[in-house]
Amino acid sequence: MAKRGRALWKRAKKIIPGGNQLLSKRSEMFLPEQWPSYYKKARGIEVWDLDGNKYLDFSIMSVGSCTLGYADPDVNRAVKLTIDNGSISTLNCPEEVELAELLVKLHPWAKMVRFARTGGESMAIAVRIARAYSEKDKVAVCGYHGWSDWYLAANLGNKKSLDGHLLPGLDPAGVPRGLQGTTLTFSYNDVHALEELAKEYKDIGVIVVETLRHEKPKDNFLLKVRKIANRIGAVLIFDEISIGWRLNLGGAHLLYGVNPDLAVFAKAMSNGYPMAAIIGKEKVMQATQKTFISSTYWTERIGPAAALATIKKMKKVNLSKHLKKIGGLIGNGWEKLAQKHRLKIKVLGPEALITFSFDYGDESQAIRTLFTQEMLKRGFLAGPSVYVSYAHKENQVKKYLAAVDEVFRFLKKAIAEKKVMALLNGPVAHSGFKRLTS
Amino acid sequence: MAKRGRALWKRAKKIIPGGNQLLSKRSEMFLPEQWPSYYKKARGIEVWDLDGNKYLDFSIMSVGSCTLGYADPDVNRAVKLTIDNGSISTLNCPEEVELAELLVKLHPWAKMVRFARTGGESMAIAVRIARAYSEKDKVAVCGYHGWSDWYLAANLGNKKSLDGHLLPGLDPAGVPRGLQGTTLTFSYNDVHALEELAKEYKDIGVIVVETLRHEKPKDNFLLKVRKIANRIGAVLIFDEISIGWRLNLGGAHLLYGVNPDLAVFAKAMSNGYPMAAIIGKEKVMQATQKTFISSTYWTERIGPAAALATIKKMKKVNLSKHLKKIGGLIGNGWEKLAQKHRLKIKVLGPEALITFSFDYGDESQAIRTLFTQEMLKRGFLAGPSVYVSYAHKENQVKKYLAAVDEVFRFLKKAIAEKKVMALLNGPVAHSGFKRLTS
Repeated sequence: MAKRGRALWKRAKKIIPGGNQLLSKRSEMFLPEQWPSYYKKARGIEVWDLDGNKYLDFSIMSVGSCTLGYADPDVNRAVKLTIDNGSISTLNCPEEVELAELLVKLHPWAKMVRFARTGGESMAIAVRIARAYSEKDKVAVCGYHGWSDWYLAANLGNKKSLDGHLLPGLDPAGVPRGLQGTTLTFSYNDVHALEELAKEYKDIGVIVVETLRHEKPKDNFLLKVRKIANRIGAVLIFDEISIGWRLNLGGAHLLYGVNPDLAVFAKAMSNGYPMAAIIGKEKVMQATQKTFISSTYWTERIGPAAALATIKKMKKVNLSKHLKKIGGLIGNGWEKLAQKHRLKIKVLGPEALITFSFDYGDESQAIRTLFTQEMLKRGFLAGPSVYVSYAHKENQVKKYLAAVDEVFRFLKKAIAEKKVMALLNGPVAHSGFKRLTS
Repeated sequence: MAKRGRALWKRAKKIIPGGNQLLSKRSEMFLPEQWPSYYKKARGIEVWDLDGNKYLDFSIMSVGSCTLGYADPDVNRAVKLTIDNGSISTLNCPEEVELAELLVKLHPWAKMVRFARTGGESMAIAVRIARAYSEKDKVAVCGYHGWSDWYLAANLGNKKSLDGHLLPGLDPAGVPRGLQGTTLTFSYNDVHALEELAKEYKDIGVIVVETLRHEKPKDNFLLKVRKIANRIGAVLIFDEISIGWRLNLGGAHLLYGVNPDLAVFAKAMSNGYPMAAIIGKEKVMQATQKTFISSTYWTERIGPAAALATIKKMKKVNLSKHLKKIGGLIGNGWEKLAQKHRLKIKVLGPEALITFSFDYGDESQAIRTLFTQEMLKRGFLAGPSVYVSYAHKENQVKKYLAAVDEVFRFLKKAIAEKKVMALLNGPVAHSGFKRLTS
């Protein structure tokens, strides 16, 4: 099964360090030596591999970048019109102004906008603007924010500083040592830790937080962070790249009534077409003019056109309501089926990013790999997380849960008979950065 | 004329700091208060503004990103097929492996490839890989390489360090001060200056050079840089973003027989669709695995599909031969017409990036602005540089030169009668970074 994809992945690893451009899409993260790895076609949640096998994507949906489903007809229509009319020129595209005005309308606290095309670079831009405004270099950070120097600098003194922030073991090799001490970490919902940083370091000019991910803000966490930022004169950045557009139309911070100085969007806002936005208060955004932030491809037209069409459709179909419903069905399904088969699992929300883990200590990762292997046999791309999309429909969830029912039964038996490793047709999946590169 | 575009540009500047995402496409760089600023449609070298006025683009052709012309039918066909089949998914796209193999075939010294989507981020990736490999942080740099911290750090000690490198006055506001001294500049063709840096600093781990731009390498400059890199144990990076694919099929370094350790491509390789590539020797590229370089949008499919179609067509039509011929006609035309009207100008090659300047001291920029104003009236987007494309045809060059003939006559008279400023219907164009932001 998936012979061509597996062969191509081997070829890829010889010519592309790591095999591809994103850790989360490496075959070893799902099912080493068995994963189809490549697609020929994707539509809705259907994905065809290079051998023509069809799967339903109940996994990461391209790390959540396609909230409307693959190849959404409405977004694609807008993009193709853009291509026919020229996707770039010496003159600028009017769509970027329209998009800027829409983002500001959705986030009334923000008055100005800049665009980029990838999540990592948009966070680097936000930090640059924030530092230029505050004139202080130190960043207090919580959560995952990409590959850039400013973020990985947190691991320069202690390689484990970022271990609690999504991806453990991030090695800062190649990040200049002059940045050591510029990025300081604190944990989500730990206001005390941020207070301690603020006491110890007088030159924190930037606070960067993922608005939320699987953990909800407790005890007014976001508001308390906002107040600390005000008190110490730091620019507050909410990273909405992963959570934005899923819980509501726009940044999740709108739900909590706490406004940052800058917010950053990328994934989800343009249904998989590269696009990123930095929105912010006027006085902070004006600092952009003091520094140099400029790149040719940020002027192309597909990104803004796709974002306008995507946001319009997300609004029209009430996307967040759909994601909550479908994610709820999946999460409840896992819990019920686990109870039925007496499997120990833990389910985490929010529904739009529903995820579960097996609770079997050191054996958990092997069991998770076996889950993916058995689900793949049944025609599902499946792991521990589902980034729900508008294309996930109830009848597909039923089919998926019917397969989960079979596979959970199989797993329970395998665990009871101590056959998990024996039943795996390849190695155990990697779970973080470290394992992959060693 | 161009009423809508001028009005939209005013609106844009209120909501987007600087008005757009790229300095070189700001209206003030061409013709303040008069530039059409936005396009509705672009095809070949024809560009329609928001009021439906049509122009021929004899200017920067989207800063050289469209070597085949706007909306090239062959590239667009490949891109639209990609869109129909899903431009992204949880699985990877096979096109990126095909593209990696093609790049390595065209550059036999290179064995591995990574991809990104914008020029600035691809240079930051190359510098990260180089630092991770050499384990030394200092970078010796020559030329223009974008907005990232590693590059602007050169101006932290002395704000004029980068002044000789394309864009004068780049302010490093927001670049952390811990990077001061990490990036050291030297001038193109000045081997002695690089030798002096190598003597003074023992920890230079990276040398970054634009292979060439308007100045040709003299006296084996590239080879000498290569030898210094070998001697001091520095990774040599050739930035081919601006020059690559124009003089030959691939990096310009192939013409000089000097191989870097890493080379970076972006503009031109995908005819305006966001795409960037870092190619390199295996031992250096393997350092990618020691650090963390990963981004979701780097996995989308349009970039690789567009690059494959673009490279195929550039080869088929012998693009570099066409650019040399057309650029030659333009450059010779300027010189002959300047002689005819006794205008003092200087023309610089290479033909594919042909450029000229007026030689009238402080008045030059006003004369250049008047040139753009009068050419615009005649239906041409025109400035001091033409990024030639495959879509520039001889009959269009004839029309363009006929207009230049009229405008040069007009300029000569204006200069003689000291009426240049009086004839301008708006302010003088900005020429660099400083003027624009002050």
